[in-house]
Amino acid sequence: MQFTINRQAFIKALNDVSRAISSRTTIPILTNIKLVLNDEELILTGSNADISIETTIPQSDTSAQLVITQPGGITLPATFFTNIVKRLPADNMTLAIDGLRAAITSGASAFTINGQDVQNYPQLPEMEDVQSLSVSAAQLVDIISQTKISASTQESRPILTGIHLQLTGNSVKAVTTDSHRLSQRIVTLTGTDADVDADVIIPAKAFNELQSLLEGQDRVDIKLAANQAVFDLGHTTFYTRLLEGNYPETDRLIPTESTTAITIEASALLGAIDRASLLSHESRNNVVQLSLKNGAAVLTGNSQEVGQVKEELGAQTIDGDDLDISFNPDYVRDALRVFNGKSVDVKFTSNLRPFTLTPAGETDNKQLQLITPVRTF
Amino acid sequence: MQFTINRQAFIKALNDVSRAISSRTTIPILTNIKLVLNDEELILTGSNADISIETTIPQSDTSAQLVITQPGGITLPATFFTNIVKRLPADNMTLAIDGLRAAITSGASAFTINGQDVQNYPQLPEMEDVQSLSVSAAQLVDIISQTKISASTQESRPILTGIHLQLTGNSVKAVTTDSHRLSQRIVTLTGTDADVDADVIIPAKAFNELQSLLEGQDRVDIKLAANQAVFDLGHTTFYTRLLEGNYPETDRLIPTESTTAITIEASALLGAIDRASLLSHESRNNVVQLSLKNGAAVLTGNSQEVGQVKEELGAQTIDGDDLDISFNPDYVRDALRVFNGKSVDVKFTSNLRPFTLTPAGETDNKQLQLITPVRTF
Repeated sequence: MQFTINRQAFIKALNDVSRAISSRTTIPILTNIKLVLNDEELILTGSNADISIETTIPQSDTSAQLVITQPGGITLPATFFTNIVKRLPADNMTLAIDGLRAAITSGASAFTINGQDVQNYPQLPEMEDVQSLSVSAAQLVDIISQTKISASTQESRPILTGIHLQLTGNSVKAVTTDSHRLSQRIVTLTGTDADVDADVIIPAKAFNELQSLLEGQDRVDIKLAANQAVFDLGHTTFYTRLLEGNYPETDRLIPTESTTAITIEASALLGAIDRASLLSHESRNNVVQLSLKNGAAVLTGNSQEVGQVKEELGAQTIDGDDLDISFNPDYVRDALRVFNGKSVDVKFTSNLRPFTLTPAGETDNKQLQLITPVRTF
Repeated sequence: MQFTINRQAFIKALNDVSRAISSRTTIPILTNIKLVLNDEELILTGSNADISIETTIPQSDTSAQLVITQPGGITLPATFFTNIVKRLPADNMTLAIDGLRAAITSGASAFTINGQDVQNYPQLPEMEDVQSLSVSAAQLVDIISQTKISASTQESRPILTGIHLQLTGNSVKAVTTDSHRLSQRIVTLTGTDADVDADVIIPAKAFNELQSLLEGQDRVDIKLAANQAVFDLGHTTFYTRLLEGNYPETDRLIPTESTTAITIEASALLGAIDRASLLSHESRNNVVQLSLKNGAAVLTGNSQEVGQVKEELGAQTIDGDDLDISFNPDYVRDALRVFNGKSVDVKFTSNLRPFTLTPAGETDNKQLQLITPVRTF
């Protein structure tokens, strides 16, 4: 294998596939980056066994200035190799493989580093019974960012670490819950005549890496198979395994009525929650209280050792029964952040039942955050 | 104690004194910030026992809008209190002390937090036999940044963790060495008729915090006593203890002749050293080799497990005997960085003797970096 390439274009591709590579893998060769060169293109692959990213630099990409001298393949230590490429002195660089040794030259600089056989790198799994759909990148980012906050980070119930996606026709329903809170987002896909019928659970942390790749992207082709999802972003392809099992039924968790409701600007409530959590984070139990009484809303926090906080909330409307309710302020903070400064309706039934946050005036639960209160008495 | 103050001005003062505060102190009250209010000004103090920072907000400072209602004092948990002040909602805030409880109010937000008695906060030591001088802040930063790199970070020989300052008339000689390398900077103070005679060792890490405070400063008044140095920056005063003991004699370590010399742009050598150290950092011993032969300079690194690197250096001149020498690339990198992209002379006597870096063409050793090679055979 031998090629010459523009260093900046190569660094971009190395950075993209490196998002999938972890130094904490149990499969040593996955700390390497896989490079395969054929007569027309250079293909880079990175993987952590859960997700894989593949990016292709074709000879026709004029900015990459790829000159193919000899096809072949090798895997090279990802971090070490990428750091070398980033610091080379000239605009272009040449990589030439002799056995398992890679000679890297650029200007007056020459490196020789040891690689491993490309044959030992795991193959990407075959896709069977594939369903396809095209999604706008902005809608996909919307669905992910509205739901990933409530995915569990505990491996005790692996299924809850995923985002549950139910696709029917051109409608997508996304749900996450860690059993303390729940996020739901329902959207009708735009710019597509997709007619799929699928029910999949995608690991939420896979989306952390996908979101970065989606920046500047217009549309994404998604392929869903029994155990894998593939996001095709043109020259870059993102693979993630699916979580196996049945996702819990969540519709019955969402209250259908409320006895107390306030409407408030998300940013005003967020400021008060942020301050109150300064105190609750110093306390043994991370809890704040909301009191709705005589048309006033007051947020308080109390800690014998640390002190007290009291925030009078400037709510737009306060309706219904008086209420005292306690909750983890971090859950409410995460929920408020996804409303991006709009006004929200917060609806309660009792201080023991979950309460919901939805965009002010909307009752269709298409954008819903649900939080279970903390029992403090 | 009770006062009202502009929050931004207060945050600036809290940030300044917080530079002295460490959460890893063995004296619990030093995790607190000390606030003392008299009839004219608010005085904030932070300390980690080695360094202390005191800053004063006078009533006459119009931007601070300080309104003094009741003089007094308290100490409050530094990080927690500062975070609260930073997140309060209104432009101004009021602090009122009742016993050891501090009530903080701003807009619709109210905190009560627990403090400790200001009487329990350690007093700053008295200064005796003081010598004073005025220094330009830019010259002080120059002296610090050219020397602190060679100060030891090991506590096995505490004296070597300091910067050795010898002041005679209006000349300052600053020296550091960790026994592997040495930095020396000699300057004639400008804009002062100082006539001091002092020999002090200031902990190098004290200067990390002082450097941040010096930004935007014009001149600094320095007071030196037997066991303490004080840097007066107007409304802010920086105190540091001095290191006790005799600093080793260093003049005899500096070579007076050389048998091989190269002149090279600092940035060109730095680029090659940076790349070569990518490889040496992956190796068991962090060493690179420089070969000067037949008028060519070549930097190489070799590691059985990792690979090789070879950098041809574009030196401006190469004079004297052929030489092969090995060294820790990190020491040369640190030394080159202080030359800020200028050309440097690198002078050698043998591959077992220290070599020096000085500004190209200068032979007065007023700006000198010395590095001991590594014996590899």
